[in-house]
Amino acid sequence: MSFQYLTNLPLDKAKTEYIDRLIQNGMAPKTETISVTQAAGRITAEPVYARINSPHYNACAMDGIALMAHLTFGAGETTPVSLTAEQYTRVNTGDKLPDNCDAVVMIEDVIECDDSTIKLYDSASPWQHIRQIGEDICAGEMLLPSRSRLTPASLGAMIAGGLHQVEVIKRPIAGIIPTGDELVPPTKDPEAGDILEFNSTIFSAMLRDWGAEAVTYPIVEDNLDSLRTAIASALKECDIVLVNAGSSAGSKDYAAEAIAANGEVLYHGIAIKPGKPAILGLCGDKPILGVPGYPVSGIIVIEELLRPIVEYLCRMSQDPAEYTDATLSKSIVSTLKYQEFVRVRMGLVNSKLIATPLSRGSGVVTSFMKADGIVNIPQGVEGFESGETVRIRLLRSKEALSRSIVAIGSHDPLLDELTELLQRATDGQISLGSSHVGSMGGIMAVRRGEAHIAATHLLDEKTGEYNIPFIKRYFPNGGVRLVECVKRTQGLILQKGNPKNITDISGLKQEGLRYVNRQKGSGTRVLLDYLCKNEGIDTSSIYGYEREEYTHTAVAALIAADSADAGLGIYSVSKLYDLDFVPVCNERYDLLIPDYAWDSPSVQAFLEVLKSSAFRQKLDDLGGYTVENPGTVIF
Amino acid sequence: MSFQYLTNLPLDKAKTEYIDRLIQNGMAPKTETISVTQAAGRITAEPVYARINSPHYNACAMDGIALMAHLTFGAGETTPVSLTAEQYTRVNTGDKLPDNCDAVVMIEDVIECDDSTIKLYDSASPWQHIRQIGEDICAGEMLLPSRSRLTPASLGAMIAGGLHQVEVIKRPIAGIIPTGDELVPPTKDPEAGDILEFNSTIFSAMLRDWGAEAVTYPIVEDNLDSLRTAIASALKECDIVLVNAGSSAGSKDYAAEAIAANGEVLYHGIAIKPGKPAILGLCGDKPILGVPGYPVSGIIVIEELLRPIVEYLCRMSQDPAEYTDATLSKSIVSTLKYQEFVRVRMGLVNSKLIATPLSRGSGVVTSFMKADGIVNIPQGVEGFESGETVRIRLLRSKEALSRSIVAIGSHDPLLDELTELLQRATDGQISLGSSHVGSMGGIMAVRRGEAHIAATHLLDEKTGEYNIPFIKRYFPNGGVRLVECVKRTQGLILQKGNPKNITDISGLKQEGLRYVNRQKGSGTRVLLDYLCKNEGIDTSSIYGYEREEYTHTAVAALIAADSADAGLGIYSVSKLYDLDFVPVCNERYDLLIPDYAWDSPSVQAFLEVLKSSAFRQKLDDLGGYTVENPGTVIF
Repeated sequence: MSFQYLTNLPLDKAKTEYIDRLIQNGMAPKTETISVTQAAGRITAEPVYARINSPHYNACAMDGIALMAHLTFGAGETTPVSLTAEQYTRVNTGDKLPDNCDAVVMIEDVIECDDSTIKLYDSASPWQHIRQIGEDICAGEMLLPSRSRLTPASLGAMIAGGLHQVEVIKRPIAGIIPTGDELVPPTKDPEAGDILEFNSTIFSAMLRDWGAEAVTYPIVEDNLDSLRTAIASALKECDIVLVNAGSSAGSKDYAAEAIAANGEVLYHGIAIKPGKPAILGLCGDKPILGVPGYPVSGIIVIEELLRPIVEYLCRMSQDPAEYTDATLSKSIVSTLKYQEFVRVRMGLVNSKLIATPLSRGSGVVTSFMKADGIVNIPQGVEGFESGETVRIRLLRSKEALSRSIVAIGSHDPLLDELTELLQRATDGQISLGSSHVGSMGGIMAVRRGEAHIAATHLLDEKTGEYNIPFIKRYFPNGGVRLVECVKRTQGLILQKGNPKNITDISGLKQEGLRYVNRQKGSGTRVLLDYLCKNEGIDTSSIYGYEREEYTHTAVAALIAADSADAGLGIYSVSKLYDLDFVPVCNERYDLLIPDYAWDSPSVQAFLEVLKSSAFRQKLDDLGGYTVENPGTVIF
Repeated sequence: MSFQYLTNLPLDKAKTEYIDRLIQNGMAPKTETISVTQAAGRITAEPVYARINSPHYNACAMDGIALMAHLTFGAGETTPVSLTAEQYTRVNTGDKLPDNCDAVVMIEDVIECDDSTIKLYDSASPWQHIRQIGEDICAGEMLLPSRSRLTPASLGAMIAGGLHQVEVIKRPIAGIIPTGDELVPPTKDPEAGDILEFNSTIFSAMLRDWGAEAVTYPIVEDNLDSLRTAIASALKECDIVLVNAGSSAGSKDYAAEAIAANGEVLYHGIAIKPGKPAILGLCGDKPILGVPGYPVSGIIVIEELLRPIVEYLCRMSQDPAEYTDATLSKSIVSTLKYQEFVRVRMGLVNSKLIATPLSRGSGVVTSFMKADGIVNIPQGVEGFESGETVRIRLLRSKEALSRSIVAIGSHDPLLDELTELLQRATDGQISLGSSHVGSMGGIMAVRRGEAHIAATHLLDEKTGEYNIPFIKRYFPNGGVRLVECVKRTQGLILQKGNPKNITDISGLKQEGLRYVNRQKGSGTRVLLDYLCKNEGIDTSSIYGYEREEYTHTAVAALIAADSADAGLGIYSVSKLYDLDFVPVCNERYDLLIPDYAWDSPSVQAFLEVLKSSAFRQKLDDLGGYTVENPGTVIF
């Protein structure tokens, strides 16, 4: 075959060569003629010339009388002019100016005498109170040049200028072909091994945002013939074809071969991460893109490689991407081999924009949902250090970011419920983004000035006291407040019915038991280690001690799915999954808020929500919480 | 009747009281459940919780083999571990992890031996190359709080979380009722006295931009019963009703009465200009707005009074309006009685943002089409002086404004053609906004540092020379370049067939002849005065000498429509309207470009277009131009 197999081409080179080749082959915007009433937001393909004047007749602009102005010359307070019926005509606003008239006098200034004679006490200027022909638009005049975006007012101007249709740039049609034996449509309850086909929904929404139309074809099995045929028929109907997935080089990956059979594969493999196994193919002037199956890879590939093509075909530059500098709250290690795109969550903390990297897994679509920006790590760069200033492409406005609360620390689903109450109370104006890095991670983030709020439940082994000893140690000079939130019940989360008969922590040692742990630095892991130490249990004897999850919910989910037998976590998640639960202790779950954040309107709104009865109600529903005086400063 | 008749209520008070009253009456957002695939851009009404985990099974993340990791412990370069067929299972990416396995080894690291034995030279960590249940999403976890705008990625996350429908805020439905005997649908060729009904097209596009749905009802005649019935039936189908027009207090204005018959008129008359005769009515929790008929008034009224209601019902704040300071290039006089909204054209000239007021006529819809921003003059303020810094609400981004060329000066349709060529050459990136204030106005604008380009054709009576004597006089220290554009033919534009038998300027004196003039300061008016002086004609003897138009095209349009008999202007517009033409002289039409603008990429792109053959071709089509070396610096 003629194509280059899994190359590692730099992105910019790939993009430029791909687009140049397509243009060389004749790729160009198409145009269509549509009704003016339907043309809002579209781009003119040709200059628009008015067909008629507006007004198209000399129109009276007032209710009153029309006359020749010279008849009123000399009129004044003491020298009124009298006019007889033949000398004037009564008119309403919008009426055609009668022949042999060149002025309108407002009805308020007309003094009616007996019979039909009137008196005027002021002279009229020629053409007063008349909207003359062409006042707004002259026939033949250029209303809009080509490449103009049609605003609501410009639609009105076109109709006023006698135009009912307008030639605009046609939206290119992008056809999406999902392929893979494991794919099932999003409307079916999936079996193990099934993958819900949701990429086409994401890609369609992105394409529509950029000005294209999107068509999704039925799922094609992993079979060269079927895929080749599907591409061929999509090429008949579309300007752009996307094949998703099968773009890699595995035994069931037919995208490259099927594209080549319909045209040509220009490149296969781009030096980006995620997104490497992209295929840049074409059939004449039509791009055929092989898009990787992992959603995050796919999003990056179409954003980087397809968007410029769509914009070229739409003749529509979106507002240019907004960039900003921000301080990285965590190091990012990257490979030298690829240009890498890392999603980050952002917030304005203590007058500094902070960026926290989100999960880099190609399958973690929520990382894009949560992302406020994207860091681009060039090829040949090893990454960025924590604390370093990095350039970020913004996905949310800086203004919105300035209203966002950065919560870093321990996980509890109640944080999501607080977010919900906050968004509802403020109509989505104030949001809260929480990163689950454990209690200790939260304390450190506050110390570095990188968080507004840190949730913490750290037990001091010596004193048996929660949180306060750590605050004293890490903030010897103060500068922070510890705010009461809740007490919550920690315990062993077990499969429904407790089939392994676990009654306390010592049960974790039993042969064949699959434990699932929390990550290092989390309060819950500290608690497990403390409990094991007290009971003299060697943690290396627990199968699954190294299996780390970042949230209580994830631990419970694995147990509910029979992928694990036990884990330490809070009662509310065991209730959520209807699992068994052996209580181990009650712990304080508090919120650390630095002074620099305290007075911000966002944090004050958060504290209001924390004190609300709606929050108490929600905790009741979740279960396993003791609520006293949330929102009270306790240290 | 109970309503206050033509009040003059301050806008802010009216807005607040109106919305408060509607909310008091129960106005609130509605919700609807829609397919996730159709939900892009919508706002969640309730928090969204995942129904299933994603992945919903432990999935192999690589092609290779699955096994228990402990079987590989101790493997190394010199101590490979051998495994037999029972000890591992071959897997592909996406496969369910087989039971009793906790790791995947990549196929590249598997050394196949004879039979089905394999060797591994490296140990595997538990859970490596496995996408564990809930890696992305855990069942029961809150994916999104309410009041979140659904991005493409969030649609994918919802489907991955097992959701196929989502409850979102319903778009409010706004019904528009056009009313007026003089209105005709935009699809008909209008007679004198007909008004094309285009307001509903403008309003619909605005409403859709704000997140509402818009329905336009058939035109209703000026009749109380008909209008009352139309409102009643719209109220059954819509959340908001707009009556356009008949909102004033004339004999044929039934809007207020018809609204009152369906509910209540809260206020009639708001202290804004344009837009005073607005009616704030309601029926229970539904707003019924009486909107003035002039398009500019209507746009202001719905922007100021309806938009906040739509945003309230959509629970969707648009990006907050962007404001900027700019220098006013012309004074604006305002009445103390009203808060006034003045449209301005803007540009970045010599590092200073310049704002030039556009036509303030309520019927001039092109003023909104051309506007880059809006100046808000508070009630009780007399206006702003030229040169004053004013606060402006931007309608275009500052970035786009920085690429816009400000051309102020003499009018010629060739400027529109240059704009077209420029927009086409730069795909709409560089635009040109021209204000027609006459040659002298252009020179003054350049002198004040407020224009990039000024077109000028000023004849120096003493020397008979064009433009250069004026440049010498007004720019004694230089700082500007005069660039050759064209020579053009000026002459008398006359009705087709020259019914008045005019052969030269002296013909303008004849009894009953209707002349139409250009505005003071325009080069063409200077030329007329010069010609009259030479011929000894008293201009006060010319009927219509005071009738001023701002463009050549407008003069020709009036003559073509038999509203005038003669005017002085260029050949190309007489050709456009197929009129008779008596040439009077050939004049230089040059472009003055200040040094501060010369090197800007926009001006350089303009000069390229000026030199292009496409421009020459266009001038040939227009007619009446002599083209030598456009783009050459001649002084």
